[in-house]
Amino acid sequence: MNWLAFVGLGLCGSCLSLRALDTLKASDYIYFDTYTSYIPGFGSEELSKLVGKAVTPLSREDVEDKGGRELIERALKSKVSFATLGDPFIATTHVYIRNIAMGRGIPTLYVPGVSIHSAAFSLVGLQIYKSGPTATIVEPSEIYRPRAAFEKVVGNLKRGLHTLLLLDIDVVKGRFMSFSRGAQVLAEGLIGYGVSPERLLGVGLSFVGSEGQSAVASTLLGLGGIHATAFPQSLIVPGRLDAVEAEALMFLGVNQEQLAAHARLVEELGR
Amino acid sequence: MNWLAFVGLGLCGSCLSLRALDTLKASDYIYFDTYTSYIPGFGSEELSKLVGKAVTPLSREDVEDKGGRELIERALKSKVSFATLGDPFIATTHVYIRNIAMGRGIPTLYVPGVSIHSAAFSLVGLQIYKSGPTATIVEPSEIYRPRAAFEKVVGNLKRGLHTLLLLDIDVVKGRFMSFSRGAQVLAEGLIGYGVSPERLLGVGLSFVGSEGQSAVASTLLGLGGIHATAFPQSLIVPGRLDAVEAEALMFLGVNQEQLAAHARLVEELGR
Repeated sequence: MNWLAFVGLGLCGSCLSLRALDTLKASDYIYFDTYTSYIPGFGSEELSKLVGKAVTPLSREDVEDKGGRELIERALKSKVSFATLGDPFIATTHVYIRNIAMGRGIPTLYVPGVSIHSAAFSLVGLQIYKSGPTATIVEPSEIYRPRAAFEKVVGNLKRGLHTLLLLDIDVVKGRFMSFSRGAQVLAEGLIGYGVSPERLLGVGLSFVGSEGQSAVASTLLGLGGIHATAFPQSLIVPGRLDAVEAEALMFLGVNQEQLAAHARLVEELGR
Repeated sequence: MNWLAFVGLGLCGSCLSLRALDTLKASDYIYFDTYTSYIPGFGSEELSKLVGKAVTPLSREDVEDKGGRELIERALKSKVSFATLGDPFIATTHVYIRNIAMGRGIPTLYVPGVSIHSAAFSLVGLQIYKSGPTATIVEPSEIYRPRAAFEKVVGNLKRGLHTLLLLDIDVVKGRFMSFSRGAQVLAEGLIGYGVSPERLLGVGLSFVGSEGQSAVASTLLGLGGIHATAFPQSLIVPGRLDAVEAEALMFLGVNQEQLAAHARLVEELGR
């Protein structure tokens, strides 16, 4: 029997599930996506040790430009696992490869992994059912100053929704945006929408899902001066808060006054 | 050392992570939330066998009405795990218990589990970053016909966003809403908002995350006549679809004509 399994490894080296491990062990070939995400100290070699089998790292070019051709060719006759950090289908390109495989008649398997999209909200005690669409903050340059993230945050705030902000990463170049820098970029961007970064709350997160995970809450302006050392990092801008959520943020460092200012801001934007 | 660990088991019996298993094995006491969710053939006894330790099931009364008192009292002096299906902090009541623990000075740990909030979108190839707030469909009665879910779906469609719909469950009474019934309730409700269920697409999901997971896409009207036997089930109403997402839904059963009608409907609502 042949198949192509999309296996989520979750957000840390010991975050993969028993079923993910079994699926990898049952594979004839294991490939590892090394570019859409990054976990400190957990790459192809570490995965290979954990599973006890050879693991082939795939670069962006292998996966995107060639449309995962090697994966598909192998999976026509063998059991192939394509392992990714987090959850496999958070990346569009992986859905694209699954579509190709299904079009070629290859049975596909989906082994979910813990995703930043759920774990980030859980870590800080914000309710995921009140979250709006996710945005990504990219480092602005002279020629490229995208506003999509600012618009999504404002759109969500108007509906009282929380926003998860993923931060620019370039695994190949080893560049990772900190939540401190992300908060600065967002703060500058939001001023153009009449949103004051002294009044808006933000939550900075680092290495979510791992044993060393941490979170800190402050105003967006305050977050710009807080530096965490563990990567990857991300950022949440909360929307309307219920009593349990507000209390959870107080344990992360915000005070009553900041909560009240944030609540007034969200109400004003919602009008 | 003492702590209270909130341990996510994920969405199937072998879905828990290596770290979840290690945390449970390191615990002096293990409690299991048996009421916020349900997995066929995986209860306290099965968890106890997997971990090799005693597991105490907790009812809704134990967790909600008593505010997790036994958990807190035990965790003042011992290592305590509170295991839940999916991800621990998807339920407000678990955040509430963590807040109490933190207020009492108990160190808390968060071991994330795969959540339906990410896995449902991944299974069907829809992009989670384009999802709006989640809603729950409840079985309407003579005296209780909530419209919140309809309003959320329409609000999301107006912004082109996908909506995950959780379906009414009553674990104690053994009652679980099917996506077929959920689609019927939603179809009836949406007519009042001028949304025709013949034109709107829906995706019915069953037992997401497990080896027996499946998904089927049709119009919302069509889904009302499709019956899947595996539970729990859920439903997604897609918003604006890109080419990769549209192709993924075609593998689940929709055709070009239905995709075009859906796209026109979403554009009309967005005006």
